[in-house]
Amino acid sequence: VEPTNGILVFQSDFGLLEGSVAQMYGVALKIDLNLKILDITHNIEAFNTWDASYSLFQTCPVFPSGCVFVSVVDPGVGTDRRSVVASTKAGHYVVTPDNGTLTHVCKHIGIVALREIDESVNRLPGSEKFHVFHGRDVYAYTGARLASGAIGFEEVGSELDIGSVYCHPVPGAKINDGRIEGMIDIKDPHFGMVWTNIPISMFESVDFGSKIEVEIRYKGEIKYRSEVIYGKSFGAVEVGGDVLYNNEIGFLALGTNRGSFVDKHNISSGYDWLISVTRIKDGGSLYV
Amino acid sequence: VEPTNGILVFQSDFGLLEGSVAQMYGVALKIDLNLKILDITHNIEAFNTWDASYSLFQTCPVFPSGCVFVSVVDPGVGTDRRSVVASTKAGHYVVTPDNGTLTHVCKHIGIVALREIDESVNRLPGSEKFHVFHGRDVYAYTGARLASGAIGFEEVGSELDIGSVYCHPVPGAKINDGRIEGMIDIKDPHFGMVWTNIPISMFESVDFGSKIEVEIRYKGEIKYRSEVIYGKSFGAVEVGGDVLYNNEIGFLALGTNRGSFVDKHNISSGYDWLISVTRIKDGGSLYV
Amino acid sequence: VEPTNGILVFQSDFGLLEGSVAQMYGVALKIDLNLKILDITHNIEAFNTWDASYSLFQTCPVFPSGCVFVSVVDPGVGTDRRSVVASTKAGHYVVTPDNGTLTHVCKHIGIVALREIDESVNRLPGSEKFHVFHGRDVYAYTGARLASGAIGFEEVGSELDIGSVYCHPVPGAKINDGRIEGMIDIKDPHFGMVWTNIPISMFESVDFGSKIEVEIRYKGEIKYRSEVIYGKSFGAVEVGGDVLYNNEIGFLALGTNRGSFVDKHNISSGYDWLISVTRIKDGGSLYV
Repeated sequence: VEPTNGILVFQSDFGLLEGSVAQMYGVALKIDLNLKILDITHNIEAFNTWDASYSLFQTCPVFPSGCVFVSVVDPGVGTDRRSVVASTKAGHYVVTPDNGTLTHVCKHIGIVALREIDESVNRLPGSEKFHVFHGRDVYAYTGARLASGAIGFEEVGSELDIGSVYCHPVPGAKINDGRIEGMIDIKDPHFGMVWTNIPISMFESVDFGSKIEVEIRYKGEIKYRSEVIYGKSFGAVEVGGDVLYNNEIGFLALGTNRGSFVDKHNISSGYDWLISVTRIKDGGSLYV
Repeated sequence: VEPTNGILVFQSDFGLLEGSVAQMYGVALKIDLNLKILDITHNIEAFNTWDASYSLFQTCPVFPSGCVFVSVVDPGVGTDRRSVVASTKAGHYVVTPDNGTLTHVCKHIGIVALREIDESVNRLPGSEKFHVFHGRDVYAYTGARLASGAIGFEEVGSELDIGSVYCHPVPGAKINDGRIEGMIDIKDPHFGMVWTNIPISMFESVDFGSKIEVEIRYKGEIKYRSEVIYGKSFGAVEVGGDVLYNNEIGFLALGTNRGSFVDKHNISSGYDWLISVTRIKDGGSLYV
Repeated sequence: VEPTNGILVFQSDFGLLEGSVAQMYGVALKIDLNLKILDITHNIEAFNTWDASYSLFQTCPVFPSGCVFVSVVDPGVGTDRRSVVASTKAGHYVVTPDNGTLTHVCKHIGIVALREIDESVNRLPGSEKFHVFHGRDVYAYTGARLASGAIGFEEVGSELDIGSVYCHPVPGAKINDGRIEGMIDIKDPHFGMVWTNIPISMFESVDFGSKIEVEIRYKGEIKYRSEVIYGKSFGAVEVGGDVLYNNEIGFLALGTNRGSFVDKHNISSGYDWLISVTRIKDGGSLYV
């Protein structure tokens, strides 16, 4: 178990239009004035625990070990979902309701230990009468205590079976009949790229500049079918053109040079958004 | 008077689309590289000093004593409204134009001393020719000097009568003819809850799970009337259902489980938005 | 060459809806846990290197010397634009793609030395296979190393000719036939003011309260023509009225008291948006 380093990193679906996030800061600083506080984003889509999970997976790996992440996307606040702290293989801690937020960390990074937050000791004193803001009263409070060294991981609460962590299904990509078939894991809500679950290791033999047939289906219906250049970056195609590329964390992605692939083609993400990519070779379609 | 702790917390209506907020950071860091800078929000509704005041009330109490808050919602910038620093009963300082921002801090937390900022000494050197950015030139500058210990509270400027602080009216909730009558103080601009001015102390005898008759009127017209479950949290009702609950700072609030009460019912906040709640007992309406 | 001070300031067009910005934080903290990280804004208009440049010019001057700014508006990511670090006359460093971001710093502040980032040493180890996130892999990494003192400015890479920095044209304002003629450099995306390139030094002889004739043309067509009060601040005119004023960094600007000049008059910014201002004297129009 890694020692913590005094860095506390928040993410939530609270937005930054009012003072909820700041209340979490305040509680943390009351624990220790010297904590270093940062944010991933507070604009996770409301109640979307899949996106929260993906965001941790996207972001945590570049942080130094010993950081404590507090993730609060908590549609079930005040109900009986568990509150947990996961210790990860990367040496990080994630403090969160156990409602799916740990899905990608569990699958792609690895959880080495899991504890249930014992609210009889790890809860903001005086907050017992409040039931709608565990982000402040339980998660920020516990995360700050952990990050500051006021408590060790063992003092979070009783140990849980790692296998009991609540995970959404994470379908893998497959090679099937000369195609790689996967899904669209997430879309970039700002620039409008889509990121697939196809690891670039499956695409290693393909040269940049190759033409690839890409098909996207939603509930069986074709929403996009095109020959796309596999480029190093967006500039590999003209402005407004689509490009297949390797994203920043090692998966195939689709974007539009200086535009939004999502808006241009009305594409979204999730289990129902399937993608297949096929290398076009000598006039025919063949992947391997 | 509490010593300051090196933590400077900003809020404003400047937004984060351009560099105004960052200029306040820069001025502060030029005073002292070691200041710890945080934000409540910079998305207070433009020119809305009531919301700015409420935001401080919502947020400050959880912060450690010794923090300096700089609040800049300043529709009268460059005119003759006073610039002040309030020392609060919670051991905080609030640096702000005296235009209503201190309303809720004064009413609910308490101000123990008030000083007018003497711009002949507490103003960014060289800024005399600028008249539109006191947030940078006066408030951030003075707040940073105070937070860093470069000046003490007495050096802010001359003492003012606490009673002279500019406050908006703050109507209280009342029990009247078996109903509790209050107003909607504020709406959550993100999730869409509404928060009333009815303290939960007025509701202590009511059990969670009770049915409550809620009526919201705007300028005399009924905008919402429904029997609502008084729940611990949103999960007390089905998805899409309305719930009456205790908010995170001790007042009755209304929300919609995984939805926006504000959008669903076209409800807003302010003096003209009145609410009454009545416990339904044995088929009749009776509060006490 | 100024020593760095451990402060790292980011700006980008990444938005804050997902974890790109946080990945830059993470990379920086992995270099040095003690770095102080702040943001100007991450809402620069997508791909707009002019606005990025203006934002640095607007913001940097108030920061203490020794700060390192990392600016990532990078439409050409993964193509052959240079990656540079500029050392400025104000004692700051700017780490950026050399695509126009340094325009206003170069023109108005001054660059004293320029170096090209040598990616063979100044690139996040293991990131060689990624080509779409130089903000993380090159700029945040190099900026953090510089800010922390892990490398000195000389270790960024080989020295470049200062004159080779990529700059957009920066037209100056001129006095012509009794008028001051300039352009609208930028609009405030939040409150809706427009800022011109007319320095207030050209307006020093004009008294506050004077009436000024203002004309705004877009591609030759008059988009706004009005007599406007030259006021100290917005409060110099009634609510909803237009005012000509000195902005926070020393240029003439136009705003609407408690409203948006941009929205009210459909005005924008850029080379095609020209403005002329003429002092009205004794019934006639005469500037000097």
